Order: sequence, then C-alpha cells, then structure tokens
Amino acid sequence: MTATADTGSEVPLRTLFFLSCSTGITAETLGHSLMTQFEETPYQQVTVPFVDTFAKAEATVQEINRVAAESGLPPVVFSTLVDPRIRQMLAATDCVFFDFLDTFIEPLERELKVESTHTVGRSHGMVDYDSYMARINSINFALANDDGIRADHCEHADVILIGVSRTGKTPACLYLALQYGVRAANYPLSEEDLAQECLPPVLKPFRSKLFGLSIDPQRLHQIRNERMPGSEYASYERCAYEISSIQALFAAESIPYFDASSLSIEEIASQLFQKTRIERRI
Amino acid sequence: MTATADTGSEVPLRTLFFLSCSTGITAETLGHSLMTQFEETPYQQVTVPFVDTFAKAEATVQEINRVAAESGLPPVVFSTLVDPRIRQMLAATDCVFFDFLDTFIEPLERELKVESTHTVGRSHGMVDYDSYMARINSINFALANDDGIRADHCEHADVILIGVSRTGKTPACLYLALQYGVRAANYPLSEEDLAQECLPPVLKPFRSKLFGLSIDPQRLHQIRNERMPGSEYASYERCAYEISSIQALFAAESIPYFDASSLSIEEIASQLFQKTRIERRI
Repeated sequence: MTATADTGSEVPLRTLFFLSCSTGITAETLGHSLMTQFEETPYQQVTVPFVDTFAKAEATVQEINRVAAESGLPPVVFSTLVDPRIRQMLAATDCVFFDFLDTFIEPLERELKVESTHTVGRSHGMVDYDSYMARINSINFALANDDGIRADHCEHADVILIGVSRTGKTPACLYLALQYGVRAANYPLSEEDLAQECLPPVLKPFRSKLFGLSIDPQRLHQIRNERMPGSEYASYERCAYEISSIQALFAAESIPYFDASSLSIEEIASQLFQKTRIERRI
Repeated sequence: MTATADTGSEVPLRTLFFLSCSTGITAETLGHSLMTQFEETPYQQVTVPFVDTFAKAEATVQEINRVAAESGLPPVVFSTLVDPRIRQMLAATDCVFFDFLDTFIEPLERELKVESTHTVGRSHGMVDYDSYMARINSINFALANDDGIRADHCEHADVILIGVSRTGKTPACLYLALQYGVRAANYPLSEEDLAQECLPPVLKPFRSKLFGLSIDPQRLHQIRNERMPGSEYASYERCAYEISSIQALFAAESIPYFDASSLSIEEIASQLFQKTRIERRI
C-alpha cells in the first residue's frame, strides 16, 4: 500500500488508527496536531470510535494486524482507550502505540494525589448536561439571529459581531456557540447602513458588545465572486468601497476590530477571547 | 485560592494552563479529556493562545509563578508550544509541565524516520485552504437548507437527516459541517407529512441519503416545552403521537435511524459515520 508523493518518489503511505471508547474526537485532535509536524508524510486515517466491548476490540486488533501485514508498515495508533484490558489487547498488535492515558494519567494521579476514575466517554458526551445545553441553546441563538437582529436578541448576546456581508461572521458565531457556548449575534452592515456613516439605531444601546470584522477587499471580492460571479455586489470596486467605509465607521465609533482575511474561525474565536471580556460559558 | 466541594470539605482549586503558539484548541481538548478522569478535582482554566514571542512567553512565566505562589499549588500546564526556547522558559516555571510535543514528537520522528518541521499553528488555522473552505461551504450549505429543502439541495447533500421538529437535526448538521466538512441537509417532518404516512415527494429520489433521528417522547416534550411552554405543540400527547408516527414511517420506508435522546451532537456524528457510508471531506 503505497502512494506517490508530489516529488515523484514513492513515499510509503502510513495508516493512522484513532481508537476510543467514546467518539474518537480527542484522539483525532491529538493525532492531527502531531501530524502537522510531519507534513511530508502521507497518511490515511481510520477512526474506530466506541471500542467498548471485547468483540469490538478483537475486530480492531485484526484490522490493525491486517494493515501491518499488507502494507509492511506497522500502523501508528493513537489511543484514548480507558479500559486497561482493552488497551493491552490493542497495544500488543503490530503497531506503534501512543497511549494517551498511560502517558499522562499516571503523572497526573501522582500530582493531584487522587486516583483517576477510569470512566469513559465523558469528554464529548452529554454527561455535563448543563454545559451541553448551553452549547445547543447558543447554536439556536446564533441561528435565530441570522435572519435579522432584534433589540431583545442583542440584550441576551455575549458579543455582537459586525461587518459587511461575507466577512465570516455567521460561521464564527456558530463556532463560538458550538465550542464555547458563547451567545454570539451578528449584524451585517448594508450599503444603506454604511451610507449613514453611523451605527444603525438597533445597535446603539449595545455598543460595548460590538466587535468588528474586517477583511482585505481583494479577498472579499474573491469570496463574493464565488457566490455571485460577475455581480456588482462582488465587484472589486464595491468591496473596496464597503471596506473603506466600514473601517471609517469602526474608527469614528471607536469599535474594536481586526482583519480576519487570513484567520480561520478557530483563530477568530481565540482572538476575540484575547481582545474582549467575553467569557466561555462552558 | 480554594473552592468548597460538594462534600463540604475544602478541596484545593487547581489552576490549569493551556499554552499554545496557535489557538490552544488542541491543548484544551487534551487537557479536558484528561481531567474527565479526575472529576472530583475542582479546577479553573487559563488558556494562553498565540504564545509566539519571548515577551508573551515571559508574561506567561510570571503569571504561572504568581498563581503557584498565591495558591501554594503548582499549576498543571498542558503545552503544545513548538519553539524549543519558549518551551524551555515555560517548563522551568513552578508548575507540573505536560509537554505534548516532547512526549510524542520524538518517538514519532524515530518511527516515521523524518524530522518534524517544528512549524506552528497549522492544526486549527487556514493553512490547508481547501479543507478550510470545505468546512465553511458545508456550514453555508447547512444554513441555506435550514429554512426548507429543495431538490437541488438534496442532490448536493452527503446525508439528509430527517425527523420531527426539535430532535437536534440542525445542530448535528452544523457540527458535521464544522468538524468534518460534511454537507448535511435536514428535513423536519411536519404533522401533514406524518399524516400522509409516506415520504414527502421532495425526498423520494434521495432515499439512499436519508437517515432518521428519533427521540424519547418525554424528552421531546421537555425540549419543546422549554421553547413554547404549555403549547399543544409541546404537549406529551402530541410528542408521543409524532414519535410513534415517524417510527412507523421509518420502518415502512426502510430508513435507518437511531434514538438520539441521550446523544450529544458529537456522538450523533460518530454514530452516523459508523452506520452509513458518508465520508469526511477533511
């Protein structure tokens, strides 16, 4: 099992297994982060969630050994498995085994002076019901707001993102809700709003919650053009005008903002926590 | 700095630091997963993202040492820092240092027979532009669909979740988009749809993409009652009728489904990957 790399030389394709007694999200996050440090290494991934019975463990053992035999390369296995007997079964396969729990839990037990509970699947489940519902309610909040903002909505918002159309406000709001339970509203400033050269009346009472997103006009032109090719709305001139108008508005109204052109929604969220007083709800 | 635990005895409040040269999401995911194994240990968390200069590193060093001195307890530090000099500075503070990179990167280098790139912040950034845009486009897909489904939308969907109102279809679609770039549509079956006792015409050509979500009637009653207290829509009788009707429909039309009553959106997504042929796009 090999793959041809861009250089033309054959680089062996490594198989990564992410094993978990729950969703596998932690093992994947861990493994992906590590693999960003090995960007020349081509790999394929197999996530095996809910490995919570001996039957599933045995099937996974066979799958790992099969891949090892067929590819001639031991798979790299990232495990967040909790059950010690199941972990032993998997660690004994023909693989390079990275045991998330073994590595960290024992030193943590020593430091915290308590034994770990060896319970499973609490990280991405619904066990902390209040936290979970805070996330779901915040998602609903972001969605309810998306078609137009109302004053009562603003009152309950933790933050209100403002910017011209297609600067990534809505995905950022949804990410803040999903990941952190933050109630984020957004207000897209229209051409009419910009022509007024001041804040729309609905936003004025909530100035302290406002945060601006700006973007490079060329990038905005590109994004809008993918959506409405050749339209006046997507033209570079229109984009440049809107961005210069909104930056003038941010300055005149003393609204903090940053340029989100090269930021992912994860990075936008991180920057917001750094630059505002909004707090995670979970 | 102490907190009173539920038992009435004073359990010292531990401070956790999540340090990253990027967003801090990997360090947080890692740390939260580990701490679910120590549920009796109360803690507060401090995330310090974008520690990418010596000035920021030095400020963080001082903050960790301050917390250690004031609380009398060395903070537990989870680090995904990449720069070796910055890591050394932080590891030398009065803390229990869990170094994500040191622990895993060196064994990985040996196994993969390449040196790691020591580049930073690739995991949650926009470096892999195509993957990032797949996620954003899938979020927009889920949103565009949310007000009513059209046939051309169904054609482009990877999966179409169906169920009665308030079974968690929309948050699940958004999560599938955000985390995996999956294009998930959803269709809420109305009372009229259920009365027909067959699939709505718009869905019929896409039977292979359909997946059902069911829920315990009591749980549905509770969720709807929070939204519209005392309404007929939220009544237990109405909820029980809708669930029994939709389960009959799923059976009659051979549509796979599961009960999502106690599943988080992460667990719903994991189950879908297990039970269908949908593939991650990232």
